[in-house]
Amino acid sequence: MKRYIAALALTAVLPTASFAADHPHADAIEARQGFMEVLKFNMGILGAMAKGKVDYDAAQASAAANNLAAAAKMENGAMWPEGSDNSNPALKDITEALPEGWSEYAKIAEVQKKWVAATEKLAAAAGTGVGGIRANIGDVGKSCKGCHDIARKD
Amino acid sequence: MKRYIAALALTAVLPTASFAADHPHADAIEARQGFMEVLKFNMGILGAMAKGKVDYDAAQASAAANNLAAAAKMENGAMWPEGSDNSNPALKDITEALPEGWSEYAKIAEVQKKWVAATEKLAAAAGTGVGGIRANIGDVGKSCKGCHDIARKD
Repeated sequence: MKRYIAALALTAVLPTASFAADHPHADAIEARQGFMEVLKFNMGILGAMAKGKVDYDAAQASAAANNLAAAAKMENGAMWPEGSDNSNPALKDITEALPEGWSEYAKIAEVQKKWVAATEKLAAAAGTGVGGIRANIGDVGKSCKGCHDIARKD
Repeated sequence: MKRYIAALALTAVLPTASFAADHPHADAIEARQGFMEVLKFNMGILGAMAKGKVDYDAAQASAAANNLAAAAKMENGAMWPEGSDNSNPALKDITEALPEGWSEYAKIAEVQKKWVAATEKLAAAAGTGVGGIRANIGDVGKSCKGCHDIARKD
């Protein structure tokens, strides 16, 4: 009986997860989350140097900042297909993207422009010294937050 | 008693996972896996068009191919720190990267050059028609596989 109840509980839980993973937008959601991991990692390298947690390394700083600038210029619209937000009950467990990412897209586009400009400035300065990172990383972080504030839960 | 045993079983399982997640290389592993998701997604868009599974769309094809070319040129060495392969018992559950990714790095670097060249050719051709994708996607796939064959489990 216990086993039966356990199996039943499992059945009650599983469909959501597997439905979400099979959803036509699941690949786009996984890809954009992967993209964010790449951004986070490169920001982390620069942030650690800016805070003096790791020694400044010009080549590594340049690489990380160049990666951010390249990422900001990617044409990633396909990763945010219409309807892939968390107001969709089938997707709410696998994405924190709010519908505002689409309904407020004009604002997102403005923030994105600032993001591109900020990453370019950071890329130009990151190899010149830790001061180059410190002077420019804030604007990149602000543009990250600018988009998250509009379009991301939490 | 059952609850105690269940708690004990959980304790026996959790440390591995949490140890791996807390490992200094965990962020790099997560980032490179995210990077691979971005590649897979963009390859998927082009592959679906090449196979006629979705209608050819010049703008989308160009965007996806440009993204691949930009990704191939990223300076991502930091995502593959020495010792972050699956011969490390602490990491074997979270990475499929083989030690050969480092010990055979000269071969990896050769494949990477081919990858950059192949993505550039694909980016130049993808917007010209589905034939442009079909003529060039194979070499990109080959370079993906070339690296995986050397450095990735399965």
